[in-house]
Amino acid sequence: MISPAHLAFAAAFLLVVRSSAPGAAAARPIFDGKPSPSEATATARWLAAQNTWGVLSTISSDLSGAPFGNVVSYSDGVPGEGRGIPYFYLTTLDPSARDALEDERTSFTLSEFPLGTCGEIDPENPTCAKLTLNGKLKMVDLQSSEADLAKSALFTKHPEMKDWPKNHHFKIFKMEIENIFLIDWFGGPKPISPSQYLEFGRNQGSLMYS
Amino acid sequence: MISPAHLAFAAAFLLVVRSSAPGAAAARPIFDGKPSPSEATATARWLAAQNTWGVLSTISSDLSGAPFGNVVSYSDGVPGEGRGIPYFYLTTLDPSARDALEDERTSFTLSEFPLGTCGEIDPENPTCAKLTLNGKLKMVDLQSSEADLAKSALFTKHPEMKDWPKNHHFKIFKMEIENIFLIDWFGGPKPISPSQYLEFGRNQGSLMYS
Repeated sequence: MISPAHLAFAAAFLLVVRSSAPGAAAARPIFDGKPSPSEATATARWLAAQNTWGVLSTISSDLSGAPFGNVVSYSDGVPGEGRGIPYFYLTTLDPSARDALEDERTSFTLSEFPLGTCGEIDPENPTCAKLTLNGKLKMVDLQSSEADLAKSALFTKHPEMKDWPKNHHFKIFKMEIENIFLIDWFGGPKPISPSQYLEFGRNQGSLMYS
Repeated sequence: MISPAHLAFAAAFLLVVRSSAPGAAAARPIFDGKPSPSEATATARWLAAQNTWGVLSTISSDLSGAPFGNVVSYSDGVPGEGRGIPYFYLTTLDPSARDALEDERTSFTLSEFPLGTCGEIDPENPTCAKLTLNGKLKMVDLQSSEADLAKSALFTKHPEMKDWPKNHHFKIFKMEIENIFLIDWFGGPKPISPSQYLEFGRNQGSLMYS
């Protein structure tokens, strides 16, 4: 007879085998629901992978250096292959891109609330997770392979983007993450370094969700 | 026979009478769905009245003056009586309140997307409305009548707030609005002055929605 412990071991073994199989190196975390509060990095990556829009805050040149938050769409990868880096499709007709070209210090904020998983919990309750990524907003060279990846990431999650007016000169931007602020439970923000965040799931089969 | 023009006049007359009836001075816009793109101020007030959370951006003292966006709950009034001013319930255990006490320049950003009325339209599409209020974040004196109004506004839309831990020393804050950025259609942001925004619906029976 096979015991539950054997089954659990077999399942873990399969996950490790799957993650080290040819081609699996490129795979990124596929989440099956919200990670537990004990898995802060997984929660941060889950929020980045599940949301499709957030608020990008810049230092406003129009408003003499005041902060300015703007609703933008983004993608951190094609569905199921998020890498944690938010890519944006912005035009300098909009103040956020203009601001970032003058001062690249930006903040990008996501909430669990619109995902529907907070239930009756208030959006400000610490158990309804919130993620703020701070860093530099950089334009991505349209001739680079990263631009191809970013376009694919953006256009799969935001299909109408590829038909947006050419004469608005949309450009691809990304955030180079320097600071991560995650609240997903009581007791204040969880410490997550940019490298922990970006490397999550890359070589950690047992942390992957299927 | 009563012509359609007569009926329209009678309806407008009734609205004016209703808005000038005793007690109606305190009434605020009650919206029945999203206002049309030709009614920018109504759309801004609708977004403020319908949402329950947004992103508050500050100049971060922890991050050497970079912008910092944080998910917060708010209320601009009890349901059906929004006044457009966002009230917040914040603790200085959280960086946003600490930042604002050092530099009161803040930005508060709302999206139509989580309301569900954008349908299949992308969150960044200009027809999916976005509102950014910029101004000074001020603490509201807890002994004032404004604090009573703000508490009532906050606690009706966020019932769990009144049970949040006393030892976290939550305080009521409000934004003194100085600049309004609304996108609800093609063609760039709509010009709305703070007084247009705040006075909307106050003495304009014909602009009220029921």
